[in-house]
Amino acid sequence: ITELDFELEEIEKGGYEHFMLKEIFEQPGVMEDVMRGRVRLESGSLHLGGINDNLEQLRKARRIIICACGTSWHAGLIGEYLIEEFARIPVEVDYASEFRYRNPVITPEDVVIVISQSGETADTLAALREAKEKGALVMGICNVVGSTIARETHCGMYTHAGPEIGVASTKAFTAQVIVLYMVALALSQGRTLSDSEIALYLRELSEVPSKVSEILKSSEEIHAIAGSYRNARNFLYLGRGYNFPVALEGALKLKEISYIHAEGYPAAEMKHGPIALIDEDMPVIFIATRDSTYTKILSNIEEVRSRKGRVIAIASEGDEDIRSLADHVIYIPAASAPVTPLLTVIPLQLLAYHIATLRGCNVDRPRNLAKSVTVE
Amino acid sequence: ITELDFELEEIEKGGYEHFMLKEIFEQPGVMEDVMRGRVRLESGSLHLGGINDNLEQLRKARRIIICACGTSWHAGLIGEYLIEEFARIPVEVDYASEFRYRNPVITPEDVVIVISQSGETADTLAALREAKEKGALVMGICNVVGSTIARETHCGMYTHAGPEIGVASTKAFTAQVIVLYMVALALSQGRTLSDSEIALYLRELSEVPSKVSEILKSSEEIHAIAGSYRNARNFLYLGRGYNFPVALEGALKLKEISYIHAEGYPAAEMKHGPIALIDEDMPVIFIATRDSTYTKILSNIEEVRSRKGRVIAIASEGDEDIRSLADHVIYIPAASAPVTPLLTVIPLQLLAYHIATLRGCNVDRPRNLAKSVTVE
Repeated sequence: ITELDFELEEIEKGGYEHFMLKEIFEQPGVMEDVMRGRVRLESGSLHLGGINDNLEQLRKARRIIICACGTSWHAGLIGEYLIEEFARIPVEVDYASEFRYRNPVITPEDVVIVISQSGETADTLAALREAKEKGALVMGICNVVGSTIARETHCGMYTHAGPEIGVASTKAFTAQVIVLYMVALALSQGRTLSDSEIALYLRELSEVPSKVSEILKSSEEIHAIAGSYRNARNFLYLGRGYNFPVALEGALKLKEISYIHAEGYPAAEMKHGPIALIDEDMPVIFIATRDSTYTKILSNIEEVRSRKGRVIAIASEGDEDIRSLADHVIYIPAASAPVTPLLTVIPLQLLAYHIATLRGCNVDRPRNLAKSVTVE
Repeated sequence: ITELDFELEEIEKGGYEHFMLKEIFEQPGVMEDVMRGRVRLESGSLHLGGINDNLEQLRKARRIIICACGTSWHAGLIGEYLIEEFARIPVEVDYASEFRYRNPVITPEDVVIVISQSGETADTLAALREAKEKGALVMGICNVVGSTIARETHCGMYTHAGPEIGVASTKAFTAQVIVLYMVALALSQGRTLSDSEIALYLRELSEVPSKVSEILKSSEEIHAIAGSYRNARNFLYLGRGYNFPVALEGALKLKEISYIHAEGYPAAEMKHGPIALIDEDMPVIFIATRDSTYTKILSNIEEVRSRKGRVIAIASEGDEDIRSLADHVIYIPAASAPVTPLLTVIPLQLLAYHIATLRGCNVDRPRNLAKSVTVE
C-alpha cells in the first residue's frame, strides 16, 4: 500500500520533483482561474458573485479590518495597500491571534475580511466569530470550498487555486492577492475610480499570468544563484510600499522550508536597527522595481554594499544600472505598482525552493509545520 | 584634549561602564519625571499641559494613526493596544516611511500621533507634514525639547527622559510608553472610563517605577543567563497582547548592539512558519506573564521544548510552575496587563546589554547605526 501511495503521489506531482514546485509553476493557470468569469475585459467590468449582494454595504464601510495568520496575513497587508489606494477606505490588518484576544474596537459600520487558505485556521475562525458578535459584516477569502470559515462568513470569495499540498503556501497566496485586487476595484466602482480607470487596472491584472510565465523561465538561473547562498545562515529581505509585504512573504518562505533565519522589513526601517547585522555573512534581498521609491531603495542598497553585504536584487526588466550595485539581479517584466507583488513574489518562491532543495530539506513537509493550523 | 573628553565622558557615565547601562538604571527616576505634575494621585486625575487645549478634538477622533520608526514604532504598537482598550478609538500604527509614500487615507476627522526620541527622524517628519497637509490634527511625542517635530506638530507631550546617549534606546522607550498610557487615559475621561477607573489605572502606573527598581536588582542574575547564550547566532522573541510589541523591542535591542539575528513575533504566529527554525541552536524568549493568554503561551513553550529549543521565560513573581518548562526564568513583580510592557522590557534591555558586552561589542556606539536617522 505504501508503494501504491508513493506511485500515486508521483503521478499527482505531474513530473515535478515536489508539490511545491508544481504549485509554483501552476500559478499562471491558477491566476486565470481566479479571474475567470469575474474579470470581463470586453466590458472592463467585474462580476464578483460571492459578494455581489453585499457590495453596497462593503462600499459604505467606515473601516475595513483584515484578519489572518502567516502567509494569508501577508496577502492581507497587500490588500490594505490596494484597498486604501483604490477605494480610499481606511484598512487595518491584524494578526487573527492578536485581534481575538484584545477586545478589538469593532462596530456594525466596520467590515472584517478574514483570509485563510484552508478555511479552518483556528485563530482566524475565532476572529471571525468575535467580529460577527460585534455586529460587523464579515467577508471570507478561502481556498477550500465549504470550509468552516467559508460557511460562517456573511459573504466571500473563493480563490479557486485548487488543492495546495506543499506546506509552504505559494499559489494560494497569489490567488488571495488577486481576489483582494478585484475586491479593491469593486469597492471603488462608482466612488473613487472611473469606469475607464477600473478597465485599465483590470487590463493590467489580466496581463499578470503571462508575465508570471516569463518569470518562471528564470528558474534555472535562480537555481544557480541559490547555489551561492545555500550555506547562508541568515537573510534579510527588504522592500517598500506594495513590495514590503512581499519581503515578509519571501523571508517566510525561506524560513519555512530551508530553516534559514530570514527576516523581512520595510527597507527604510533598516537604518533603525537591522543594518547593524549587515556583514559579508548576511545576504540581503532587495525588491527594487522601478516605481516611486526606486531611488530610495538604491540608496539603501548602497548602504548595504558599503558594509560588505551581498545583495540580490529583484529588478525591472531593462534596468542595467542596478547590475553595478547588486551581486545578482533577477528581472521581472515591467508592470504598474499595484500588480507588482504578484510578480516579485515568484522569484522569491523559487529562490526559497532551490535553496531548500540544495540543502536537502523536505520542502513539501518541512519540520515542525502543519499545512493548516487548526489548533490555537 | 582627547584625554579630557575621555575623563568627561567617564564622569557623565556616573560610575556605569556604558551610557546604555546608566540609562537602563535611570528608568525608575525617568518614569517619575514623566509623570511629575501630570499624574495627580490625590485627586486621581491627569494634567497634560501640552495637549490640554486639544483634548476635545482628540477625543472626537474618528481614527488615530500612529507613525514612527524603530523603537518608537514599538512604543506606538503598545499605544494602539492602550488607546483601543481604554478609549475605544480605532488606532492604526504605520511605519513612518511606509505612511508617507503611499498616499494614506487621512481626513480632518483623524488624529495622527508621531513619535520620535530625537524629534528629527526624517521619515517621521515627512509623515507629520503629509498628515498636516491632509488636514489631520497632529500630536507629537518627542524627547528633545524644541526639536523640529516638536515645533511642527499642533500639540504634543515631551517625554522628559533627559539626554539619551546610548544609540540603542531604552529610557526614551519606556518614557514614550508612559506618555501613551497617560494620553490613552485622557482620551477616555468622561467617555469610556469612569473617574474611579482612571484613578485605579493611574495608581497602577504610579507603582511602576518601584517595580522597575526591583527588576533592576536582577541584573547580575541576567548577566549569568547572558553567559549561557553569548555565542548564540539567532534568537526568537515571542509575546502576546501588550507583550507582543515588547517581543519586537527586545529582539531589536539584541540586534542593534550584539549583532545577533534576533526576531520578534506574536507568539501565535510561531506555528505559521517560525517554528520550523526551532532547534537546540535557536533559543527562544517567551514573555509569559500571568494574564489572559498565559495558558496559550504555556502551550507555545511546550511546543518549543518538544523541538529541543532552549527557553528563557519572563514570568510573574511567584509562578513556580513555569520553572519546569523553561531553562531560565526571569521574574517581574505582579502588575495589571496594561502596565506590564513597562516591566517586561527591562530584563530584555539588560539581557541584550549583557550579551553584547560579553561578546565585546561597543554597546554605546554599535556598528552601522546612528542615534537619530535624519536622512531618508
